[in-house]
Amino acid sequence: MALYVHKYGGSSVADAAKIVNVARRLADVYDAGHQIVTVVSAMGDTTDELIDLARTVSNEPDPRELDLLLSTGELVSITLLSMALRNLGYDAISLSGPQAGIRTDSAYGRARISEVDPERVRRELAEGRLVIVAGFQGLAPDEDITTLGRGGSDTTAVALAAALQADRCDIYTDVAGIYTADPRVVGKAAKLAAVGYEEMLELAAAGAKMHPRSIELGAVYNVPIYVASSFTDAPGTLIHNASDDEPMEDRIKVTGIAYQTNVAKVTVCGVADQPGVAAALFEPLASAGISVDTIVQNTSADRMTTDISFTVAAADLPRALREMAGLQATLGAGQVISDHTLASVSVVGSGMQNTPGYASRMFRILADGGINIDMITTSEIRISCIISQDKAHEAVRLLHEGFALDEAG
Amino acid sequence: MALYVHKYGGSSVADAAKIVNVARRLADVYDAGHQIVTVVSAMGDTTDELIDLARTVSNEPDPRELDLLLSTGELVSITLLSMALRNLGYDAISLSGPQAGIRTDSAYGRARISEVDPERVRRELAEGRLVIVAGFQGLAPDEDITTLGRGGSDTTAVALAAALQADRCDIYTDVAGIYTADPRVVGKAAKLAAVGYEEMLELAAAGAKMHPRSIELGAVYNVPIYVASSFTDAPGTLIHNASDDEPMEDRIKVTGIAYQTNVAKVTVCGVADQPGVAAALFEPLASAGISVDTIVQNTSADRMTTDISFTVAAADLPRALREMAGLQATLGAGQVISDHTLASVSVVGSGMQNTPGYASRMFRILADGGINIDMITTSEIRISCIISQDKAHEAVRLLHEGFALDEAG
Repeated sequence: MALYVHKYGGSSVADAAKIVNVARRLADVYDAGHQIVTVVSAMGDTTDELIDLARTVSNEPDPRELDLLLSTGELVSITLLSMALRNLGYDAISLSGPQAGIRTDSAYGRARISEVDPERVRRELAEGRLVIVAGFQGLAPDEDITTLGRGGSDTTAVALAAALQADRCDIYTDVAGIYTADPRVVGKAAKLAAVGYEEMLELAAAGAKMHPRSIELGAVYNVPIYVASSFTDAPGTLIHNASDDEPMEDRIKVTGIAYQTNVAKVTVCGVADQPGVAAALFEPLASAGISVDTIVQNTSADRMTTDISFTVAAADLPRALREMAGLQATLGAGQVISDHTLASVSVVGSGMQNTPGYASRMFRILADGGINIDMITTSEIRISCIISQDKAHEAVRLLHEGFALDEAG
Repeated sequence: MALYVHKYGGSSVADAAKIVNVARRLADVYDAGHQIVTVVSAMGDTTDELIDLARTVSNEPDPRELDLLLSTGELVSITLLSMALRNLGYDAISLSGPQAGIRTDSAYGRARISEVDPERVRRELAEGRLVIVAGFQGLAPDEDITTLGRGGSDTTAVALAAALQADRCDIYTDVAGIYTADPRVVGKAAKLAAVGYEEMLELAAAGAKMHPRSIELGAVYNVPIYVASSFTDAPGTLIHNASDDEPMEDRIKVTGIAYQTNVAKVTVCGVADQPGVAAALFEPLASAGISVDTIVQNTSADRMTTDISFTVAAADLPRALREMAGLQATLGAGQVISDHTLASVSVVGSGMQNTPGYASRMFRILADGGINIDMITTSEIRISCIISQDKAHEAVRLLHEGFALDEAG
C-alpha cells in the first residue's frame, strides 16, 4: 500500500463531467489498495472570474479581502469532487486549506507555507477515506485566510506530500509532461521521462508550468513529483533527485532548451568602482519586490568607474527605472540605459559548468544563425544568453537541433 | 455612540450596484458616530445555484460537503461588501462565521448556534472598523463548517447582537416590515409599528419572513429587532418585549391574522385509550424530523378507544403516513385517514386566551362566511382553525375585516 498525493489543476475540474472523470481516476487508485490525498484547484477560470467580480465593487481590492474571496473557488471544487466520489460509492471528505493544516505567513496574495500540520489528513486516511484538499490557500497566524499566488496548488500538493512522507506527488494537468523545449515553438521537442529538480526549475516554461516553489520544496524534502496529463494515461515526466539512480558521469548532459521573453535590461553607467555600490543598487529593487535575473558588471579601462547591467521582467521595468532615478544622484552614476525588447535562451543540463565545450558550442550555434548575444550568464546547470526578443523562437529551435535534442521520427 | 447589528438579505446584495448601495447606507450610520456589525446573506439566488451545482455531480449531496459548499456564497458577499466600503474610503473587514466566533452543533444543513465568541468582532470594532460577518454559517466542534438552514442569517445577526449586547438588531429585507396580514392576500393590511416577539412568531407569514429561531433568540436575550426595507427609508416594524412600555390592559388586542397553506391532517382511529399511546405515536415522528403542529384527541363514547388527529406540513405527509403504517399493528389502531388539502388561519394577539369573546367572534366570522372549521387549537397568543385550503385567503380577508384591522384609507 502506497500513499500518493495527487493534484488536479483548474482545467482538469472545469465542469461536472471533468470532475466525475477525476473521481473515477481516484477511485481506480483507491481500488488498487492505495491511500490517496488529492489537492484541487478552482474550476476552470473561476479565480479570474472572482478577481473580475472584485473589480466591480473596488478599483483596488484589499489583498486580505481578495484572498478570502478567492479561497471560495477551491472550496467549490473540493466539495464537488468529494460529492462525486461519494456518488460513486466511495467515502470521501473535503478539507479546506486551514482544515488540512496548511499554515502560512500573512503575505496576502503570495503567502508562503510556514508549516503543514497533517494530523487531520492522517486521521481521515486512517478512517479509509479519500481526502480532497483545497489547493492555493492556507491559514495565517491571525486565523485569516491567505492564498499562495498563481499556481500555488502545486506547492500545496508537494508540501502535503512532504509532511505526509508520501511515496510520490502526482501533478495532473493539461500538458502531458516536461519537454526538451516548448512544444509550441519546437515541433520536434521530446517529452522527458525524468528530470532533476534544478533542471525542472529552468525548464518550467517547456511543457507543464509548475509553481517554482513546489519544485524547490520537492528538492528540499526529496519528494518525487510525477507530471502527467489528467485526460490521458500517456506516461508523464518524473521530477526527482536524478543522482539517486544515475551513474555520475551520465548526469552530464543537455536536458533541454528554455527561453523567456519580455526581458528588459537596465545599464547604469559610470558608477564609482568601490565596495557597497552593488548593494546600494540592488537593495532598493529587492525592497520594491522587483526580481532581478542576470547581473553583469564591467569595470572600465581606468578602473575608477564601472557599468552595471541587469535584467528584470519587462513589466517591472518602469518601477526599476524609477528606483534607479532615485539612486543616480546618491551614487554619482552617469546615464541609465534600458531595453525592453529582449529574451533569454538557456541550454539546461546537469553539471555543464564543469564540462568544457557546452558554452562555446552554444555561442557557435547562435553565431551561425546570425543571432547576436547581448549578455551571458552561467550557473551550475544552465548557460543563458540574452538576445533580441524577435530571435527567441529561432534561437530555441537552432539550439534544440544543434544539441541533438530533436525527437527521432 | 450606539452599537448596531445590521442584516442584509440576498436580494439586498444581489449585484454590484446593490452591494455599493448597502455600503453607502452603512457608511451613513458609521458617519453618524455609531459602531456597526453587518451580517450578510449570499448574493441573490447563489445558495440555490450552489445546490443545483451539487446536484450535477451527486444525486444526494452529502450534508457536510454541501454545507462547506454553501458557505462560499456568504464569503463572496462579505468580501465584496467590505471591498465596496474600502473603495468608499472606510476601514472595513470581513469575517467568516467561524472567524466571527459563531460556534454550532454538528447538525449539517440545520445547525443550531451553541455559542458566540465575540472577541474578534469586538477587537475589530475597537480598531474603528466596520465589521462584515458571513451569515448562515458557523463552526462545529470538529472544526468543520456548518450552515444554519434557510434564513439562518437572521439568527446569526440576532445571536451576534445578543453576544455583543448591541443596542438593536436591524433586519433589512425586500419587505418593509410586519403587517397585520399578508399584504398579497389582504389589500388593506396595515404595517405594524411594533409587535411582541411571540406575536411575530405567529405573524412571520405576514410580511418579512424571518427565521423563527432568530425571534426566539431575540425574546430570550431581549434584543430589540427592527425589520425594514433595504431599498427605502420608510419606517419598519420593531419586534420587542411589548410589555416593557405598554400598559398591561392595552396589551390585550388582536395584532394580526396569520395563515398557512399546505397543511395536512392525519387521523389515527380506534387507538386504545391508555397511558403511553400518544408518546408511542409522536416519538417516531419526532425522530424522523417531522414537525407536528396541531394535535387533537377525541375519546370515543365507550371510552375504550380514542381518535387522534394531528397536522403536519403537506410535504411531510408521505413520511408521516409511513411512520403511522409501522405503528398501526403495534398500537392495535384502526383506520388511518389523511387529508392534504387544508390550511390554518389564526387570529394573533397578546393575552387573548384569558379574554372571553375572541374565539367565539372568530368562529362566527368564519361561519357567516360559510367556511367550515375542521380543527381548533388555542395558545396564549393565538386561536387557530384548520379549514379547507381553497377557503384560506377568503378566511384571512374576512377575519382581517371582522377584527377591524383593515387600514383606514
